[in-house]
Amino acid sequence: MRQALAQAQLAYEAGEVPVGAVMVLDGRVISRGFNQTEALRDPTAHAEMLAITAATHYLGAKYLSQCTLYVTLEPCLMCGAALGWAQLGGLVIGAPDLKKGYQVMQPKALHPKTKVISGILADECQAMLLSFFAQLRK
Amino acid sequence: MRQALAQAQLAYEAGEVPVGAVMVLDGRVISRGFNQTEALRDPTAHAEMLAITAATHYLGAKYLSQCTLYVTLEPCLMCGAALGWAQLGGLVIGAPDLKKGYQVMQPKALHPKTKVISGILADECQAMLLSFFAQLRK
Repeated sequence: MRQALAQAQLAYEAGEVPVGAVMVLDGRVISRGFNQTEALRDPTAHAEMLAITAATHYLGAKYLSQCTLYVTLEPCLMCGAALGWAQLGGLVIGAPDLKKGYQVMQPKALHPKTKVISGILADECQAMLLSFFAQLRK
Repeated sequence: MRQALAQAQLAYEAGEVPVGAVMVLDGRVISRGFNQTEALRDPTAHAEMLAITAATHYLGAKYLSQCTLYVTLEPCLMCGAALGWAQLGGLVIGAPDLKKGYQVMQPKALHPKTKVISGILADECQAMLLSFFAQLRK
């Protein structure tokens, strides 16, 4: 999750909502992503989507059932459903998203076999988001 | 929808689940997409996602509130939520997807202002999908 936070920091410094993600296979990071919706002017360019696409390109396969995604904020419905299509093996979440997270919108967005762990470094993940939005309002 | 069907035909010929989409602004097609999950080995490469990203790149803006997407099959949850983030203006659907469509999974995936029309050339859209899966089983 420390590496996902480092990705979120890159988003923060670029003026993007600070969310970061890393995809891990056999203890090794195979892809990274941070939110780039502003830079790419693409509403689908969430950290998770970029990490999924990069990981499947790296593996040459469209399933990620052996991989675990670490992400600093609970995925939204789009990203949750994308992880579902990818049949992700494991999902480790930092801060919860009680408004737009997939868990409140549709928990079945994920594949039924995906193992989910929540609340890892949640305070740090949340603090970066709060700091970003506080700056934004200034 | 005829142009979306032509995109779906391209997917069909490439051995991909035949779904096609076109994004229209002021009566003009600004982007096209067909399902390419196999070719790109990317579970996020649905017709709608490719059409969204191409349209936002073309416009240099991350919102599509003036645009209408024509798609041969009801979007899944991932695509529905992506269209929600894009604040899509209008959505015209061919065939329904009663199993994995956003409407059964979470209708609020779309932006509340998106106007939806369903069932346009539904039989033709459906027939192409049925033909594809019948071939696949042979």
